[in-house]
Amino acid sequence: MRIDGRANDELRKWVITPDFIGQPAGSVLIGCGTTRELCAASFDAKVPPWMKAQNVPGGWITCEYGMLPAATKERTRREASAGKQSGRTVEIQRLIGRSLRMSADLMALGERTIYIDCDVIEADGGTRCAGISGAAVALALACRRYAPDAFRELVAAVSVGVVDGEPMLDLCYEEDSNAEVDMNIVMTESGKLIEIQGTAEGAPFDRKRLDELVDLAEHGLKQIFAIQRAALEAAR
Amino acid sequence: MRIDGRANDELRKWVITPDFIGQPAGSVLIGCGTTRELCAASFDAKVPPWMKAQNVPGGWITCEYGMLPAATKERTRREASAGKQSGRTVEIQRLIGRSLRMSADLMALGERTIYIDCDVIEADGGTRCAGISGAAVALALACRRYAPDAFRELVAAVSVGVVDGEPMLDLCYEEDSNAEVDMNIVMTESGKLIEIQGTAEGAPFDRKRLDELVDLAEHGLKQIFAIQRAALEAAR
Amino acid sequence: MRIDGRANDELRKWVITPDFIGQPAGSVLIGCGTTRELCAASFDAKVPPWMKAQNVPGGWITCEYGMLPAATKERTRREASAGKQSGRTVEIQRLIGRSLRMSADLMALGERTIYIDCDVIEADGGTRCAGISGAAVALALACRRYAPDAFRELVAAVSVGVVDGEPMLDLCYEEDSNAEVDMNIVMTESGKLIEIQGTAEGAPFDRKRLDELVDLAEHGLKQIFAIQRAALEAAR
Amino acid sequence: MRIDGRANDELRKWVITPDFIGQPAGSVLIGCGTTRELCAASFDAKVPPWMKAQNVPGGWITCEYGMLPAATKERTRREASAGKQSGRTVEIQRLIGRSLRMSADLMALGERTIYIDCDVIEADGGTRCAGISGAAVALALACRRYAPDAFRELVAAVSVGVVDGEPMLDLCYEEDSNAEVDMNIVMTESGKLIEIQGTAEGAPFDRKRLDELVDLAEHGLKQIFAIQRAALEAAR
Amino acid sequence: MRIDGRANDELRKWVITPDFIGQPAGSVLIGCGTTRELCAASFDAKVPPWMKAQNVPGGWITCEYGMLPAATKERTRREASAGKQSGRTVEIQRLIGRSLRMSADLMALGERTIYIDCDVIEADGGTRCAGISGAAVALALACRRYAPDAFRELVAAVSVGVVDGEPMLDLCYEEDSNAEVDMNIVMTESGKLIEIQGTAEGAPFDRKRLDELVDLAEHGLKQIFAIQRAALEAAR
Amino acid sequence: MRIDGRANDELRKWVITPDFIGQPAGSVLIGCGTTRELCAASFDAKVPPWMKAQNVPGGWITCEYGMLPAATKERTRREASAGKQSGRTVEIQRLIGRSLRMSADLMALGERTIYIDCDVIEADGGTRCAGISGAAVALALACRRYAPDAFRELVAAVSVGVVDGEPMLDLCYEEDSNAEVDMNIVMTESGKLIEIQGTAEGAPFDRKRLDELVDLAEHGLKQIFAIQRAALEAAR
Repeated sequence: MRIDGRANDELRKWVITPDFIGQPAGSVLIGCGTTRELCAASFDAKVPPWMKAQNVPGGWITCEYGMLPAATKERTRREASAGKQSGRTVEIQRLIGRSLRMSADLMALGERTIYIDCDVIEADGGTRCAGISGAAVALALACRRYAPDAFRELVAAVSVGVVDGEPMLDLCYEEDSNAEVDMNIVMTESGKLIEIQGTAEGAPFDRKRLDELVDLAEHGLKQIFAIQRAALEAAR
Repeated sequence: MRIDGRANDELRKWVITPDFIGQPAGSVLIGCGTTRELCAASFDAKVPPWMKAQNVPGGWITCEYGMLPAATKERTRREASAGKQSGRTVEIQRLIGRSLRMSADLMALGERTIYIDCDVIEADGGTRCAGISGAAVALALACRRYAPDAFRELVAAVSVGVVDGEPMLDLCYEEDSNAEVDMNIVMTESGKLIEIQGTAEGAPFDRKRLDELVDLAEHGLKQIFAIQRAALEAAR
Repeated sequence: MRIDGRANDELRKWVITPDFIGQPAGSVLIGCGTTRELCAASFDAKVPPWMKAQNVPGGWITCEYGMLPAATKERTRREASAGKQSGRTVEIQRLIGRSLRMSADLMALGERTIYIDCDVIEADGGTRCAGISGAAVALALACRRYAPDAFRELVAAVSVGVVDGEPMLDLCYEEDSNAEVDMNIVMTESGKLIEIQGTAEGAPFDRKRLDELVDLAEHGLKQIFAIQRAALEAAR
Repeated sequence: MRIDGRANDELRKWVITPDFIGQPAGSVLIGCGTTRELCAASFDAKVPPWMKAQNVPGGWITCEYGMLPAATKERTRREASAGKQSGRTVEIQRLIGRSLRMSADLMALGERTIYIDCDVIEADGGTRCAGISGAAVALALACRRYAPDAFRELVAAVSVGVVDGEPMLDLCYEEDSNAEVDMNIVMTESGKLIEIQGTAEGAPFDRKRLDELVDLAEHGLKQIFAIQRAALEAAR
Repeated sequence: MRIDGRANDELRKWVITPDFIGQPAGSVLIGCGTTRELCAASFDAKVPPWMKAQNVPGGWITCEYGMLPAATKERTRREASAGKQSGRTVEIQRLIGRSLRMSADLMALGERTIYIDCDVIEADGGTRCAGISGAAVALALACRRYAPDAFRELVAAVSVGVVDGEPMLDLCYEEDSNAEVDMNIVMTESGKLIEIQGTAEGAPFDRKRLDELVDLAEHGLKQIFAIQRAALEAAR
Repeated sequence: MRIDGRANDELRKWVITPDFIGQPAGSVLIGCGTTRELCAASFDAKVPPWMKAQNVPGGWITCEYGMLPAATKERTRREASAGKQSGRTVEIQRLIGRSLRMSADLMALGERTIYIDCDVIEADGGTRCAGISGAAVALALACRRYAPDAFRELVAAVSVGVVDGEPMLDLCYEEDSNAEVDMNIVMTESGKLIEIQGTAEGAPFDRKRLDELVDLAEHGLKQIFAIQRAALEAAR
């Protein structure tokens, strides 16, 4: 049995509260276990300079990710006062941005940017997957209100991994710290892959293990899509 | 009547939720009107290098302040990606830090630092005062648990100002933007001044106006201290 | 008696030398005790980008403050080589800028910026007040020459504080370091308040003390306005 | 047929020149098609501060990646003069570092750091894979000379992708720019996965496609391991 | 006899390989002794903002210099990750830029910038002189192809110095580290001085010594111009 | 005749006021024409980290240079707020530091650093030479008081150049802007060269011109040494 009593193929409790804050076009507070994260989608009536410079038509979706200093057991240094974002932050926000761009039709968005902000209030593992899954709902709400043609499909993400030789779904922080293999999988609601990032932390893995992990992720993602749907309903 | 229907000497609705997040020694979510802010107090088992270098005995309390990008009507640029904190941020976190240091006995704290993190989730004016008032409760909780001798007294802050020629208590964002005079007052629960910062935004003011504004602040602060007390009780 | 032999309500010797340097539109060297500071006012034929972006009409006045490394007993690290301005610097230059903007009619200034540069050559306490008082004369000279309609009124600032339980005027560095209360007051020549910033450093203070300190500041500011007037005369 | 005449499952020409520069413990110039990259492995007799702070035993391997400004068709801005590394650079060097750490036994390395430097001299796609494959040889040479017990196994990487609906091996820049799916796969010489990073650039992909791409990568990696082996022989 | 067996007035072996990389308009790999450096010249269809602002007609030539971390015996910290260029780097790239601007007719260049990138792959002294001498060839090639009227004349540079009381030509790293006087001389192919930078490292020097050193440099530069010519021929 | 009526071999009026500020160990205000610069020498009881790391014995002398924003006709951007020193600043402070280190016996200085701060209050050409010449006196005063064995010899610097085909001594800003050749020469009081930096701005120059310029500099430097001597006498 796992450290928190779950079965290997069992998600933590996922809760999505839509419209948690009032200013952005769409927002949610997403919780999975004791991880909690604010996800917001805000419109900006411009596109990035590089799109202008290269005459790329349509709009853009970009993400910025942050961790509140008090979100972790040992207080994390504030990146704004350190004067730079960590490599980990950069990597995560690029992943979230790429994933969310698959959720929308950038041409239909017109010459606008949607900023996705994912800010972790409490961290217990899985914050990049929570960010993608929460931001997808915030984006859906924002599009529903201001760009109905631009939304294509929900996306969601979940982590899987190998801990003590066992494939497990939706790792908490302690499991993640001890995982031999750590994988994040992003899919569309229609069941296709958007991103797969698997890393051997301790020992390399074979093709069979890769298959098991993707199976496990698909199993978890079906439930997460249902929770996203319910949140979207609740926000009507 | 004011823009949101309040009397000139009426506070917005203030709500303090203790222990909103689980990792730091003390934390609250404080709301005043539609302003909401997370305040956390975390211990660090070191003091700043300058205290070491100058052989200053005792502990230290410092504050970092941030505004989530989606907290404002127009999305605010993320300071971590901009690579520096704005002058406004620096000014606010220095004020909060100074105020909170008056709340504690730094010698009794021992060779430790308490980090105060104030992060604005939703901004509608008064975030520095909400930060001080919320952080004081987070600090009280943190000391109750890990440094009982170090806590001296609650502090709280409220804004007052002159809008359309009228002295008003606890300005919301729109009032603040149009204020002729803008003042933040920090007091101890025993009724003494810790900090007074008054600025003529449009027209200089006379001594009589100064007195009226301090009166108004005292009136509001009594109610805020009661709300802080209640939050501290609730957290037991 | 005070450390340098003054009475509690006695200013240090204030000296304002107009047009100390030749390039800017207006400049002074201001000395108060052994504090000496160069204040300059320079025109720039543009307004800041945010004014353009928000269609704010009129001109702007902004301040930058610096301390030469050799101005202090222990050499101060050069901010240009450190790569950032300290929180203290940011706080001071924002205060000076706000104060000087009350000295001018920004609409009459037209679409121009006046840069105020305050650079401390020798530091012995009171540099932000010396900066405001000196810069007001530099600004008056600059406007006299290039924007006669834009100047409204002189402003000046002085520090007051409580040292060893006694209210004192115009603190030197050693007094400032030991002050229980430290207050900077900015007024117009017509006797109104522009800014009041009072901080309890050691012990909170009551309303009566606040009144005494403002009285003391008013007493000192009258003399400073006379010294400013004389400098303006001398520069004709 | 592909843009450069290759079959879909055909590698570009890969060439590894060992000991291209004389100072580091190990170095190679690796070329694949017109991509050329200098990879070096240098010892440092310290471990990173975080290892010291957390008492992590053994050594460390870290990577820094750079692109010479003139390596690309449009000159790339120099990161040293821009003052920061791009998100892309950060992501790549973290990937290379993680991959190379699986190539060594960090405990056997002792309290030392090996710096891997990958600098792209000419860029035509696949620079992160060339970096991993080249750095593995540089690392093997460095360990052979100064840490024989610390080397475990060669690692190598190759890109695969879907272009115009066809799975292809070892994409050049133009193919990469038009790929619908882009995947980088890192394996050990013994045939296990270290890292899999697949991204849908244009359209999500299904499990069957995932399998085809991993097959294609395995096919290419066998040949790359042979080229690495030959380079290691040549360096004896 | 010198440390590497040369006579005092003998150059190291200089080798210039034209068009070492394919993307920039002109490039060379230059070697002198074990120093090796990539020099590239790339066109940009803009001029710097300051030229626009000041209405300076014609084009511009600027240089950026870098040292690969593994180029030196002790690995050098990567400036891109340090977040700033060192003073030494800044000094060198300004010298190379100034020198190369004398090689071209900026008016004939039109409203374009040529970026010179000098990146040291292996460092054994003399990298700024190698940079100038190599970049001159890269510039000549770039102009030959895209701006034939803009090229005026070849320039080249060599170091001279006093080591153990002896004037020496083209110092290697170990000689440079122990030099009493260190001088870099840049000349045109027609035999005139562009830049002379001489520094007493250990003991000041007299006029006679200055003359000897310039003589020695002229002697070496004649040979370097011949090597540049040959490289330009080879590139036809 | 020159723009300011001087003969070609005539210095501007040089004035050195010793001990212009009270805190540093030594200081001067140096004026040459309308250029004015504050030079200070301050002791620090440590040596730089690199000396410690490499076990270099003795002390160190380093320089930081700055230009007050209002020192120039067009206000110069403040480097502290820009967040970095310009290339020009870096180049100048490195030159001043190197020159001053020849003025002292670093071994006799002991394990201490002397910081030289050169801050330009008014700029009209020649600030690097004024900085060296003024700082030499500040250094001499500092050593006289706190390190009498460490002072070796005065150094001074002057600019020379070719303007409209004529060699000229001690260029003012307008001459400097139009110079065909610009040269800075640093010598010891005993008449030897420490540094020679000559740059062809418009047209390369021959050996004869080099000789004339060094002659002219020697002529000017003799007078500057006399002015330094007088200032040192006055400070007794």
